[in-house]
Amino acid sequence: MYREKIKVLDCTVRDGGLINDHHFTDDFVRAIYKAISKSGIDYMEFGYRSSRELFPPSDYGAWKYCDDDKISEIIDGIESDVKISIMVDSYRVKEQEFRPADESPVDMIRAATYVKYIDSSIELIKKCHDLGYETTCNIMAVSTEIEPDIVEALKQLADSPVDIVYVVDSFGALYSEQIKYLVNLYQEHLPGKELGVHCHNNQQLAFGNTIEGIIHGANYLDGSLYGIGRGPGNCCLELLVGFLKNPKFNLTPILKVIQDEMMPMLKEIEWGYMIPYMITGMMNEHPRSAIAYRNTPDKDKYAEFYEQMREAEE
Amino acid sequence: MYREKIKVLDCTVRDGGLINDHHFTDDFVRAIYKAISKSGIDYMEFGYRSSRELFPPSDYGAWKYCDDDKISEIIDGIESDVKISIMVDSYRVKEQEFRPADESPVDMIRAATYVKYIDSSIELIKKCHDLGYETTCNIMAVSTEIEPDIVEALKQLADSPVDIVYVVDSFGALYSEQIKYLVNLYQEHLPGKELGVHCHNNQQLAFGNTIEGIIHGANYLDGSLYGIGRGPGNCCLELLVGFLKNPKFNLTPILKVIQDEMMPMLKEIEWGYMIPYMITGMMNEHPRSAIAYRNTPDKDKYAEFYEQMREAEE
Repeated sequence: MYREKIKVLDCTVRDGGLINDHHFTDDFVRAIYKAISKSGIDYMEFGYRSSRELFPPSDYGAWKYCDDDKISEIIDGIESDVKISIMVDSYRVKEQEFRPADESPVDMIRAATYVKYIDSSIELIKKCHDLGYETTCNIMAVSTEIEPDIVEALKQLADSPVDIVYVVDSFGALYSEQIKYLVNLYQEHLPGKELGVHCHNNQQLAFGNTIEGIIHGANYLDGSLYGIGRGPGNCCLELLVGFLKNPKFNLTPILKVIQDEMMPMLKEIEWGYMIPYMITGMMNEHPRSAIAYRNTPDKDKYAEFYEQMREAEE
Repeated sequence: MYREKIKVLDCTVRDGGLINDHHFTDDFVRAIYKAISKSGIDYMEFGYRSSRELFPPSDYGAWKYCDDDKISEIIDGIESDVKISIMVDSYRVKEQEFRPADESPVDMIRAATYVKYIDSSIELIKKCHDLGYETTCNIMAVSTEIEPDIVEALKQLADSPVDIVYVVDSFGALYSEQIKYLVNLYQEHLPGKELGVHCHNNQQLAFGNTIEGIIHGANYLDGSLYGIGRGPGNCCLELLVGFLKNPKFNLTPILKVIQDEMMPMLKEIEWGYMIPYMITGMMNEHPRSAIAYRNTPDKDKYAEFYEQMREAEE
């Protein structure tokens, strides 16, 4: 038996873009969009709408900016009921523009923030809500925040027009009992709002923790094809769809696009379970030191990396 | 805070041996034994004690039989507090011999069985118990058994001298709520016995489900280095040790042996998360069809494999 309220969001192109500075080809993005459309997934996220002042186009591909016209160009002519989302780092909003929702291919804007920047996040959410978008607030790195600060942010969000608030395990550090605690805490302080979960796979817990989120009431679930995403990546979309029983979902197009697009992609860019990411996850640290280590000739000296990380704690 | 009663068993050589017909070199097994000894892990399992009549030595390596003298040869001269276990398919006992425990390097004998063979399993357990071994019963494929049959087997085990009974997710099919159900069911019918969990990683849930087992009272936990094991493999020992807080465990030798032995091994033999195993897990099927498919030129045609499996259900 399935829970009708559950919505699945594919973040393949958005989170995957963190590995290659958003340099996916149009053909790749179109193939993903086609497959996601056929599979009955509810949302697909294309990337970020970032500031060109802060992030010059010489350094990034199109999906760092997600211009409306670029998205329209990709989806043109493809039959689809998939809603489109983009993410905005809401503490880095500069000159980016947002058209009214009914003039844009975008349906949902997801404001990513840290607890300390919750005010600027709510400002963006209000603006996007008034323009007619669905809105979410994705509070990152919550595994490093103390409860009173989280609760204060949640109370502000409770009074905002935000539709959905996400528990985001940025560092892949959380175990199931911690997911349970956070989802329950969010629920307590966000009456009437929907909750989401976005988990990272540092400790091979992204799918298990997503299930834990479902058990405690989260209805918005992020996944990506074969788990693509920065470092260890995300909850695998194929696992999530295999678990959810809603007959509107169709696994076959998902498996097909994994074999046709993701397996070749995995030969070009690296993601998935690797010991350095397991170590940063276990230590509740940002993966940046593991990413840096994977770019050195010592990338497979796991014991050494662990000892370095332990020393850095002193 | 840690739970003193928790014991960790490394099944690298035993479950890994299912991939290569137990043809590990002595050097490899010795390197694993050294690392497991340094890491403070409680048990290491070397393989099966199988019948040479049923499984001729021309087809298998030494760890299919785990002769006492062979084990002694490997561990000779290595300082260690690790207890040694071997597994026996208790429904295939023929001419195998078991010395009294105090004349053997083996400390624990684990009887693997299906529910339908529980009587022969208990016979072996009694014999091994009388010889002075610790004993376990590992009831395989429990995800395909109906409750009255499981309960009958558990009641027989409750009256036997077995020390530990394992919930074994042979097909990697179980989700956390099902692990909870089974561990609770075992607990109810096995007063005074310890419980264990052995999970497979078809759906990237082996570690998450092991944690679920811990939450509900299982104290014997199986893991293997970098998750090595047939098909998708097992719960990663490194993740388990990272999670458990007992200061007697030391992660560094585990990471060292992964880099030195397991990463090169992964270039020779295949294990880990792969879509065909995810499909058999999701469908609660034995991995044999996925193993066979991985040995064909079509091994990466995931959608086709899924459709074949769906058709076979009719």
